[in-house]
Amino acid sequence: MSASKRTVFFVSDGTGITAEALGRSLLAQFNDIEFDQITLPYIDDKAKAFQVVQKINNCMIQEGHKPIIFDTIVNQEIRQILASSKGFMIDIFSTFLNPLELELKTKSSYTVGKSHSIVGDTQYATRISAINYALDNDDGIKTHHYDTADVVIVGVSRCGKTPTCLYLALQFGIRAANYPFTEDDLDDLKLPNSLKPYKNKLFGLSIEPERLAAIRNERKPNSRYASFRQCESEIRGVEALFAKENIPYLNSTHYSIEEISTKLMAECDLNRFGH
Amino acid sequence: MSASKRTVFFVSDGTGITAEALGRSLLAQFNDIEFDQITLPYIDDKAKAFQVVQKINNCMIQEGHKPIIFDTIVNQEIRQILASSKGFMIDIFSTFLNPLELELKTKSSYTVGKSHSIVGDTQYATRISAINYALDNDDGIKTHHYDTADVVIVGVSRCGKTPTCLYLALQFGIRAANYPFTEDDLDDLKLPNSLKPYKNKLFGLSIEPERLAAIRNERKPNSRYASFRQCESEIRGVEALFAKENIPYLNSTHYSIEEISTKLMAECDLNRFGH
Repeated sequence: MSASKRTVFFVSDGTGITAEALGRSLLAQFNDIEFDQITLPYIDDKAKAFQVVQKINNCMIQEGHKPIIFDTIVNQEIRQILASSKGFMIDIFSTFLNPLELELKTKSSYTVGKSHSIVGDTQYATRISAINYALDNDDGIKTHHYDTADVVIVGVSRCGKTPTCLYLALQFGIRAANYPFTEDDLDDLKLPNSLKPYKNKLFGLSIEPERLAAIRNERKPNSRYASFRQCESEIRGVEALFAKENIPYLNSTHYSIEEISTKLMAECDLNRFGH
Repeated sequence: MSASKRTVFFVSDGTGITAEALGRSLLAQFNDIEFDQITLPYIDDKAKAFQVVQKINNCMIQEGHKPIIFDTIVNQEIRQILASSKGFMIDIFSTFLNPLELELKTKSSYTVGKSHSIVGDTQYATRISAINYALDNDDGIKTHHYDTADVVIVGVSRCGKTPTCLYLALQFGIRAANYPFTEDDLDDLKLPNSLKPYKNKLFGLSIEPERLAAIRNERKPNSRYASFRQCESEIRGVEALFAKENIPYLNSTHYSIEEISTKLMAECDLNRFGH
């Protein structure tokens, strides 16, 4: 194994999702190294911790480099076992909990896996309800529940509306419906009647015609629907409609659903979990 | 404002999602304090950073406590502006990037907002494709694409199959279909023919009848479908079927979709992004 490849362990007593998120952000700063990523969730007793240490030490022997460890283990005893390994440990909780305790003038509760558990989490019900809302109001299936939407995403077919709605729901508890403009809507350059009362909730997505054609071709290869000419004409129409009706919009081509969602929230002044 | 309420800022030059994830994990350890949470994403130039400092300092004056700041800003100049505020700063990157640079014997690229961007991210396409797969193969609509599924989640209606499939897709790029058992399936205690060839991909969800009845009542109040008696009978049937066919399963009642997903992945030996 070359020096430009390193093994990374994300170790947690809960789901491991926080350790992964933080670890990946940091690793993304090191372009020239390839990271083999292993997540070990639910390491919540000493026996499991000793097994992890074994795994890390074996990896160290095989590769001749210290494996990198990102851990979010709350229990100090288990964390200390992990720290006895030969890996290079980025110990998130012990680094930050102590300074936070001093600043907040209170002891932390050292409770395991709280951040992704439903216990005492009022936001969880909001998220699940928002997921159901997104599914029920996807793709213009229903248009009579827009009164309870936080946002209604509009755009042509396959420009990224549905994944964005789902992400807004799952991650932020935002109730997002979406409505696909048809060719008729675009020919007339008019908002459909079902959208008119909710003009202040509309947010548009656009996309480069080349990209749209590529996405549609995966769905329906060589169709008129997927042709560049058709995509270009729809995009031209939709952007004209956004301009005419003063609908804020984003070109989604180079953005991830995380970026589209957070930019949309900033633009529409939407807060997480309805706050 | 009492001492048991504190304002928290998540500040990022990207989406802010990593700062939120880490910050919330840490804050969850302080039960007796209420946190007002404000996310400020896309703080990517000096002017915006100075505005944030102003906001933090105003908050400090109003509340008489230091606001807590979790930041994931990569650019050092912008980070230093933020550090000049009167808040209590948990500076994630400056804390960990330097030790990582030493261990990896290379300089970090200090590139903004990489972790949730699609640039150079092969995992992104996998995630989007998995989302489309989950939507296309939700709720037993189609049963002829199970050959390309990573897992097929089975259980009674409204036990949490769909949100789990969506989360597996969005977060981990896992292709998850789901199939709802009907009363007929449960009466016969037999797997439907469409599932038989994929027995090794099945994962079951169960749930406590009280909880199931409550969820169904929100959907269809006072229906037979939502009655405790009906829910109990279906759950008894489904658990018998899981046992008879040796299908691994989880009782989802007390778990979040993050927990269900990560436990399922461990049980089924599924790796992130098809690795």
